[in-house]
Amino acid sequence: MIKKIDHIAIGVKDVDQAAAFYRDVLGLPVSEPEIVESQKVKVVMVPVGEVKIELMQPTSEESPLHKQIEKGGEGIKHICFGVEEIHQAHKTLSEKDVPLVNPEPISGAHNTLAFFVHPKATNRVLLEMNMPKDGEAH
Amino acid sequence: MIKKIDHIAIGVKDVDQAAAFYRDVLGLPVSEPEIVESQKVKVVMVPVGEVKIELMQPTSEESPLHKQIEKGGEGIKHICFGVEEIHQAHKTLSEKDVPLVNPEPISGAHNTLAFFVHPKATNRVLLEMNMPKDGEAH
Repeated sequence: MIKKIDHIAIGVKDVDQAAAFYRDVLGLPVSEPEIVESQKVKVVMVPVGEVKIELMQPTSEESPLHKQIEKGGEGIKHICFGVEEIHQAHKTLSEKDVPLVNPEPISGAHNTLAFFVHPKATNRVLLEMNMPKDGEAH
Repeated sequence: MIKKIDHIAIGVKDVDQAAAFYRDVLGLPVSEPEIVESQKVKVVMVPVGEVKIELMQPTSEESPLHKQIEKGGEGIKHICFGVEEIHQAHKTLSEKDVPLVNPEPISGAHNTLAFFVHPKATNRVLLEMNMPKDGEAH
């Protein structure tokens, strides 16, 4: 079911400042910032081997991430597993009575299909599962 | 300097229960539990692609992890980058005035040399850097 860790998402107040640390101090490549309108976040991706670090800054007080940072501060907000087939993964976890945030896979950032597992099932770690949209079974 | 993400460390109260989720629900391989005396933790490793998820349970109230869980609850405690050469990485970050927890690399779990970057430099993400001991330059 699970292929790899796709990304680790870090919530920050200033994504340009955060990206500068990964680029200038750690010497990692960083993407241009991208606005994800649906989530009201500005995102910079930092590829590290087969994983990406996703630095996310809320662009509005209405962003779900704004509330997360207000409540819990900056830091790691979720980790995302890349799965073979997202609908099958959703079905498998549902059948095992794992509490899921999304009743079915939704459109995620960066042209993916995704869903979240509720952190009460996972020692307070918010887990995302995703798959590229073009990886969808036909 | 950085090769990959080596592991993601998750602090839990019951590592057997946590490992069962990764094994039985997500279908991932999990290691036998191992006691790391120096850190007073019981650890289960869950390899996912080139990364490992490290589930850690304090074995004593004197474990540094016990305090972390008392204060901040269960959840992701740090991420660790695998570096080419640990002493060089420590020198590079020191010279860039990055605040480091360890004045020099120390013996980490699983036969590694490691040091931690202070979370005040990294948007409240505790970063470890490590290298296998047998990867040491001679």
